Amino acid sequence: MTEDTISFDLYHPQPLLIVISGPTAVGKDAVIKLMFERKLLLHFVVTSTTRPKRENEVEGVDYFFVTMDRFQQMIAHNELLEYSWVYNAYKGIPRQQIENALASGIDVIMRIDVQGARKIRQIYPECVQIFLIPKDEKELRDRIINRKSESEEEIRHRLATAGEELKCLPQFDYIVVNENSYLHHTVDTIWSIIVAEHHRIVPRKINL
Amino acid sequence: MTEDTISFDLYHPQPLLIVISGPTAVGKDAVIKLMFERKLLLHFVVTSTTRPKRENEVEGVDYFFVTMDRFQQMIAHNELLEYSWVYNAYKGIPRQQIENALASGIDVIMRIDVQGARKIRQIYPECVQIFLIPKDEKELRDRIINRKSESEEEIRHRLATAGEELKCLPQFDYIVVNENSYLHHTVDTIWSIIVAEHHRIVPRKINL
Repeated sequence: MTEDTISFDLYHPQPLLIVISGPTAVGKDAVIKLMFERKLLLHFVVTSTTRPKRENEVEGVDYFFVTMDRFQQMIAHNELLEYSWVYNAYKGIPRQQIENALASGIDVIMRIDVQGARKIRQIYPECVQIFLIPKDEKELRDRIINRKSESEEEIRHRLATAGEELKCLPQFDYIVVNENSYLHHTVDTIWSIIVAEHHRIVPRKINL
Repeated sequence: MTEDTISFDLYHPQPLLIVISGPTAVGKDAVIKLMFERKLLLHFVVTSTTRPKRENEVEGVDYFFVTMDRFQQMIAHNELLEYSWVYNAYKGIPRQQIENALASGIDVIMRIDVQGARKIRQIYPECVQIFLIPKDEKELRDRIINRKSESEEEIRHRLATAGEELKCLPQFDYIVVNENSYLHHTVDTIWSIIVAEHHRIVPRKINL
């Protein structure tokens, strides 16, 4: 830097990998769906799953719904960044999708369960991990019960799992309360976190 | 945590101390003024200064304009968190103002030069420090020249100082470009940073 030339070349935002996680039934899918509807400039990772399509879900938008055979093929060919067996179905994150989006400079967002988030952190330590929590226990129970696709036993299992998953809070970077009637507020807050992360100078501490 | 009781008592936002800094003439005062006009829920620190009041400035809003005698009394009585002698005038931050606001749970925001920001960091390591930079050298020059209160010599001195101050970027947490025609955008970004900081779980790394 000479006396007459001041360098303003200080600001190089990198694309972010944003991970939306939280306990089962906290509303991760609804949050991602609203972000998608708002046409935010993000690449939305589409997870592959072997579970049956729910009412209102759209192939290739909510999930890629694949057969057990196809999923096992993806595992064998190392096509998945991460995969897990949860609630009697496989879910997995296609590796190529994320690499392509980041390479083109676009922020990538994905929703994933708590165990999956930990694995993503190991692969991409600099990813931004956001933990959604319900307003209170009643909202969580109501949300689990309202999913008519689930049996009594599954409901009990999910409630116990949610309690365990909430204990994983300290491994995340940010916490956002996802209140039933304030889904837009949740998305506003997540967007603020993304904006802030693009303006960060000093790196975050990361709990691996 | 028992099997039937899930704890949601995870989220304890503390009031933030937000420091807006950046090179001379980057527009710190204009940014703070717009935030004030937007009636954001913040305590705006009012700095005391011995410099003459500029046109359009309001006593007790932009600054407390005090005499040299009164300022030296504040120094002697340890009423100032930080003070400095810049451009032929004293500027200082009243200590009690900040302590009272933080104690009442309100976020506090202040604008301060780069040297002052370093001192504030030593006193409040957890403060959030935002560094404003101009869009380019031309905007910075124009802004300095348009302040009609300043002599040719002062203009040259300020330009040289700005170059030095820009080198202090790495001591800050966030960088925001304050472009002349996009002051509202600057304020939106700062607000996003404040929102994000309230949702942080893992503490920031701090460069002391």
